[in-house]
Amino acid sequence: MATTHRFLALAEAKFGPMTSKTANACIRYTPERVVAVLDSTQAGRTAQEVLGFGGAIPVVATFADGMTHGANALLLGTAPQGGQLPPSWRAIVLQALDQGLDVWSGLHYFLGDDAEFVAHARASGAAIHDLRRPPDDLDVATGRVREVDSTVILTVGTDCNIGKMTTQLQLRAALEARGQRTAFAATGQTGILLEGRGIAVDSVVADFIAGAAERLTLEAAQDAELVLVEGQGSLAHPGYSGVTYGLIHGSLPHAFVLCGQPSRTHITNNPWVPMPSLTQTIRLHELAMEPLRPAPVIAIALNTFDLTEDEARRAIQAATEETGLPATDVVRFDPSPVVDAIEKFHRARMGELTAAR
Amino acid sequence: MATTHRFLALAEAKFGPMTSKTANACIRYTPERVVAVLDSTQAGRTAQEVLGFGGAIPVVATFADGMTHGANALLLGTAPQGGQLPPSWRAIVLQALDQGLDVWSGLHYFLGDDAEFVAHARASGAAIHDLRRPPDDLDVATGRVREVDSTVILTVGTDCNIGKMTTQLQLRAALEARGQRTAFAATGQTGILLEGRGIAVDSVVADFIAGAAERLTLEAAQDAELVLVEGQGSLAHPGYSGVTYGLIHGSLPHAFVLCGQPSRTHITNNPWVPMPSLTQTIRLHELAMEPLRPAPVIAIALNTFDLTEDEARRAIQAATEETGLPATDVVRFDPSPVVDAIEKFHRARMGELTAAR
Repeated sequence: MATTHRFLALAEAKFGPMTSKTANACIRYTPERVVAVLDSTQAGRTAQEVLGFGGAIPVVATFADGMTHGANALLLGTAPQGGQLPPSWRAIVLQALDQGLDVWSGLHYFLGDDAEFVAHARASGAAIHDLRRPPDDLDVATGRVREVDSTVILTVGTDCNIGKMTTQLQLRAALEARGQRTAFAATGQTGILLEGRGIAVDSVVADFIAGAAERLTLEAAQDAELVLVEGQGSLAHPGYSGVTYGLIHGSLPHAFVLCGQPSRTHITNNPWVPMPSLTQTIRLHELAMEPLRPAPVIAIALNTFDLTEDEARRAIQAATEETGLPATDVVRFDPSPVVDAIEKFHRARMGELTAAR
Repeated sequence: MATTHRFLALAEAKFGPMTSKTANACIRYTPERVVAVLDSTQAGRTAQEVLGFGGAIPVVATFADGMTHGANALLLGTAPQGGQLPPSWRAIVLQALDQGLDVWSGLHYFLGDDAEFVAHARASGAAIHDLRRPPDDLDVATGRVREVDSTVILTVGTDCNIGKMTTQLQLRAALEARGQRTAFAATGQTGILLEGRGIAVDSVVADFIAGAAERLTLEAAQDAELVLVEGQGSLAHPGYSGVTYGLIHGSLPHAFVLCGQPSRTHITNNPWVPMPSLTQTIRLHELAMEPLRPAPVIAIALNTFDLTEDEARRAIQAATEETGLPATDVVRFDPSPVVDAIEKFHRARMGELTAAR
């Protein structure tokens, strides 16, 4: 991916800590690529004010306002459930294409298959990038991940949209700072945008979920001792759980890091499903791997952005007391407890591998 | 679906009890629609000799031989892992289309998207039916199945290709014979072929597995007190397990019937995965439903076709001893133990519903 993109991030009526995850991750990890956020309901504020990070990146009211900040590409910055194109966005995408801006989308609805968008892109020379478009040569998983020596860590969650990608990105930075050769395997539109490669496992033909996860994991393992696979959905989220389960069985993690958010009481978009406990969630994941090979949950990563610091620290302590596992908020606090757990697990595994040879 | 189809079922080098499941189900349930099976390696035999059912339906060596038996449609009768078109089949499909035969396919590879096939079909007026092509308006599941009064029963398995569809079809016949208003919700290519409707949940965009299952279940519940949902894959099959898990969370069964095959020692195509026990499989399914609502496994349906009758009866008794649940082979023996378990469960549930109102 060219680093010269200057995105206008479209997040109309949705810019916020939990409602614009593609825009937010781009702002958190590549702020130099985002010149403005389009959300007319919050125009005049800054990313910092809305998200708590992102500095002076301005929120603007119109596409034209965004252009005054030097945008040269449009990023669809939210991922509505179901991944369809909100009707009101069509005019904005067309404006962008007509002005020659490349458009980056993480929707299930592929802009590149939309005849109107294609015609406008062709006329102006703009490019359309559908981050979720899967490769066309996927196949059923075979279990080949078992053959790699790298240690594979998958983030999983008590719910969707809870920090599984962010946790891996924070952990990668920390592990690399300690000199570990670490790879991040992107499995969703936002991770792919940041990493420049990956497969959106929620967008593949259902029979190939695990096959896609297997391919990603094998590729990432080529250059790394530690492979951090981006989790998706949750085994407790009735809409997305199939993707989560397939991702687990395709990536065959040696261990899990479990993500949670202490303030949540129910599963996203499913108020009929109470949030499972950390203990229940751990049991479910460990049992899911049992038929294939045992894989423990080795640490807890809590998302505490909506708690006071005191509340956050108490929640972290409570998680450790409940599970017996190291826990922290890897964004807000020192990620060392989780990083230490991964390093310790990896060292023990390497020791066993060496002893066995 | 017109009942005037006279299929030539293509199962080249694969016609057998476990290797040609689409052809086999068509022969078992609608033998009047199958005039011949094309498998040059077994030409001269009958379906009865190869499968143990199907009577005098002949196995032929060539497409032309099939035509002499009056075929007016071609059925691709096997489903290779990955669902791609075996290269040697292309010429046969073209022959069929050129002679004006409709072609029915359950592959992931859509014949109707293949320019060469489309051109030949158009020239002769033949139709192409891709049984696995999903509707284009699917969405994420919402849990609406909770609102229906019908009792939903899902078949699940210790492995894939073990009898989950056949079990439901046998149970439907038995339940209807007892006067129960029963619907079969088809979730795979073969079930759709037999039922004339359904969605192949393994072929939808991964995020919509549960949404597709929810839609199927709601539709089936409109006219039935008992909804028998066709299971797919297995929670222990690393290639297909995501589909299985999503199907469970989308159809939200009130209870499961667990299918097994006593002679199997390892998961299909995955010799590295030992067959989980019935007990382990029951625990995994019951835990998978725990975050949403409890659903027990209420009976065991064993596939004993490759055992002697004595062995089969011993295996059934062993299954009951292991699990405490009624068990039988619903194809080979009287299905009553499983049918009784479903009726008893349904009656108890109806009693609770009435009491609660």
